[in-house]
Amino acid sequence: MSLIPPFTPEQAATVRQAIALRRDCRHFLPGPTLPDAQLERLLQAAHQAPSVGLMQPWRFMRLSTPAWRERLAPLVEAERQATAAALGARADEFLRLKVEGLRDCAELLALILPPDDGTVFGRRTLPQEMALCSAGAAVQNLWLAARVENLGLGWVSMFEPQALARVLELPHGALPLGLLCLGPVPAFYEHPLLEQTGWRQRRPLQDLLMKAPDHGN
Amino acid sequence: MSLIPPFTPEQAATVRQAIALRRDCRHFLPGPTLPDAQLERLLQAAHQAPSVGLMQPWRFMRLSTPAWRERLAPLVEAERQATAAALGARADEFLRLKVEGLRDCAELLALILPPDDGTVFGRRTLPQEMALCSAGAAVQNLWLAARVENLGLGWVSMFEPQALARVLELPHGALPLGLLCLGPVPAFYEHPLLEQTGWRQRRPLQDLLMKAPDHGN
Repeated sequence: MSLIPPFTPEQAATVRQAIALRRDCRHFLPGPTLPDAQLERLLQAAHQAPSVGLMQPWRFMRLSTPAWRERLAPLVEAERQATAAALGARADEFLRLKVEGLRDCAELLALILPPDDGTVFGRRTLPQEMALCSAGAAVQNLWLAARVENLGLGWVSMFEPQALARVLELPHGALPLGLLCLGPVPAFYEHPLLEQTGWRQRRPLQDLLMKAPDHGN
Repeated sequence: MSLIPPFTPEQAATVRQAIALRRDCRHFLPGPTLPDAQLERLLQAAHQAPSVGLMQPWRFMRLSTPAWRERLAPLVEAERQATAAALGARADEFLRLKVEGLRDCAELLALILPPDDGTVFGRRTLPQEMALCSAGAAVQNLWLAARVENLGLGWVSMFEPQALARVLELPHGALPLGLLCLGPVPAFYEHPLLEQTGWRQRRPLQDLLMKAPDHGN
């Protein structure tokens, strides 16, 4: 182990600020794709995520051409309508929300869970769960790395995964987890958009802490 | 939307550094539990994670008493032995690795996926997957927030989830996803411990980029 200098309180505050100001973005500024070096830097941050047994269960496919966006947008729209139908009483309210920025974002990437590689270390009992948690951690790294380069990211999960897998010609066993919209934004929302629009509120932290049963103490 | 000042290149570099220097820790310095205010600050960072449909599918249970550690350590040890048996040829090599710091870490927390709340928004087609990705993102926030306060975190996923759920008296439908070991460490590993010990290597980013099929262009 080498000696790595400790982080300062100011640096800790910066990271907390990035965490606090990160948003799921659906409004993007139209414009060119990102420079390759910037996109690679952001994906390197994703790739530095932890993964159970070091399985690295994240794959990325760049789909930023106009042709790909035109091909993918109807898949998302179909699922948006199916979601509205499933929501019943809140359908109209839902349909007024902006839920994606597929056509405007600078970069459109698919996040893909690769076919299971059989890793046993740390996931003998929770194989799928641990792979998915690791993929989520990778996107969170990407989100934060993008935020501090003042770029927004939106994770679109409204699609029928088998239909998307077919269009992307994914190998058997691979699962698309998201269409990631990445790029410059007009502004970062002050609060999560679902809160701002009154769809749902964040809960106080205290509600999420579970009390340990007494018998262990 | 209010105007939030942009992050500076120096701040972006700090966040990238935190991402790069974050490690899954298994070696901890014995000592007291963390001050309540510090633990709450770290859990607030976790709670600022994105979640699909704002479902916030993360719960935390503090299990830092010596009695809880004694109760939980055998569950992890049993799974460690079961993992060794499942690994076959690499069993001995695996058993020489340090895989957890349950007894020494300042704080021991369970990460729990709560019973499904029926959120449809963004997860009609991938309900379990999206909840798990969100939980993974929350832990990554916790990991980074801890790292910049110079605290280590280790995510232990070696346990039989139903057995752990029974001991923790979780409600029906809740799933324990991890035992999180958190606290001061003697040092941060220069590389992920599984790499340092030769168990497995990180892949180059290029291997994780999938080429889009031609027909979309």
